[in-house]
Amino acid sequence: MKLATVRIAGAPSWGLVIGDTFRDLGAVLGDRLPDLKSVIAQDAFDGLPAHAEAAPALPLDALEWLPVIPNPDKILCVGLNYETHRKETGRAEVGHPTIFARYANSQTGHRQPILRPKVSADLDYEGELAVIIGRPGRYIARADALGHVAGYACYNDGSVRDWQRHTHQFTPGKNFPCTGAFGPWMVTPDEVGELAPLLLQTRLNGVVVQEARIADMIFDVPRQIEYCSAFTRLEPGDVIASGTPGGVGAKRQPPLWMKPGDTVEVEIDRVGLLVNIIADE
Amino acid sequence: MKLATVRIAGAPSWGLVIGDTFRDLGAVLGDRLPDLKSVIAQDAFDGLPAHAEAAPALPLDALEWLPVIPNPDKILCVGLNYETHRKETGRAEVGHPTIFARYANSQTGHRQPILRPKVSADLDYEGELAVIIGRPGRYIARADALGHVAGYACYNDGSVRDWQRHTHQFTPGKNFPCTGAFGPWMVTPDEVGELAPLLLQTRLNGVVVQEARIADMIFDVPRQIEYCSAFTRLEPGDVIASGTPGGVGAKRQPPLWMKPGDTVEVEIDRVGLLVNIIADE
Repeated sequence: MKLATVRIAGAPSWGLVIGDTFRDLGAVLGDRLPDLKSVIAQDAFDGLPAHAEAAPALPLDALEWLPVIPNPDKILCVGLNYETHRKETGRAEVGHPTIFARYANSQTGHRQPILRPKVSADLDYEGELAVIIGRPGRYIARADALGHVAGYACYNDGSVRDWQRHTHQFTPGKNFPCTGAFGPWMVTPDEVGELAPLLLQTRLNGVVVQEARIADMIFDVPRQIEYCSAFTRLEPGDVIASGTPGGVGAKRQPPLWMKPGDTVEVEIDRVGLLVNIIADE
Repeated sequence: MKLATVRIAGAPSWGLVIGDTFRDLGAVLGDRLPDLKSVIAQDAFDGLPAHAEAAPALPLDALEWLPVIPNPDKILCVGLNYETHRKETGRAEVGHPTIFARYANSQTGHRQPILRPKVSADLDYEGELAVIIGRPGRYIARADALGHVAGYACYNDGSVRDWQRHTHQFTPGKNFPCTGAFGPWMVTPDEVGELAPLLLQTRLNGVVVQEARIADMIFDVPRQIEYCSAFTRLEPGDVIASGTPGGVGAKRQPPLWMKPGDTVEVEIDRVGLLVNIIADE
């Protein structure tokens, strides 16, 4: 099942993506299920396909996409979680996942612009697998972790590198408006299957700039859920952006920054293809 | 004006603190103003004293206090913002505020327990001035910044030091449930007056462990608002925890950790006295 959040006639809605068609379930179930987060929280997936048949249909290319979850309680980002990226940054090996935070208002949707802020030209891509939490929990055991996942999506953890390096804490460079692209949709785990063999690719203007298998993660998704749930209770709709492989623009010579008019794509097998154009703020 | 968020008969409410009495304005205005964040967003302060006279009255010592803003969109924490604390940590001087994030679910209220998690004994205090944003904005100029403040409160940025130091990012150690104490109330700027001369004190079991003037901040409140609003749009109810002075438990020999039964207090002139007891999770 593929679920998306979109804007229709100026208002957010959500629904199912079936082939080339979006079924607007917000239009028929919105009173009880106002957004995708509430669908997840109420574990209301089972009845959706039946309702989809009666829901308004829109072609995908007519949609205004919003972030898959526009209003998560928490976005937990995992830094330095592929060996190729750890090495290019020169960071030491560590025994725990590196966690920083994005605020929800830094996100943007599929085919919406990623904005280069007026205070920096150092805008970089980071293709990632996003993990969306379903069943809430604290102190989740590694063996149970995947049972807490509602679905997966593509994420571009767009980073303003000079602001990220103002101090040792990454927060400023990771929170500019419209830099965290999240979409196009969430795919439920039954359709994704085993994570390890999936290929993740980031392309800038059609050129592959990052490529890795999910198996290349230093801390895999169950370990991330175990670790994060030890220090915070995970809630339905929470997002874990699970880290990016080597190849970021900042570590190239000369650096490769994203600039207005560029097209950046994050594609993950069986998960989706997230496309954004860069624009100036 | 002093405004607080409390739980009454199991449900959150909010109101005015006048002398030794709490006036439950949620009971009379809750339809239009369901929480303190909406009061701030609607800039609805002016009419409150008139409504307070008709609102249910409760003695302060009967209240179950909640975090002043239980549901902020963002909690921005400023690290290493007093020279005494920067020096004790051995960190280099930097040209920008150090910003990390707390999630809202890590907070607790006045006279509620601060919880020592079962995975660590390294629980430390950090007395701070909390700045609550009123008028929203982006790229706020330093000269205009204080006009965007709705009020001030005491904050105890309770820190689990070993988890804070698992990697270079502070997030895990700053987000354990019931570690960020925020209260008892928010005081509007007209009652606080000039910030610089205010004394901030943290006391553990009655002993002063941190003491500084707000004037001792490296980056003052206007500078914090200017910086944060450059990378994220500030919204009504957002919280900036503006940093802690030297004297933290982690840097003492031997370290001074908070343990069950301890009483920790954060007091700031003209702002308030925040009291919490430590308990095991």
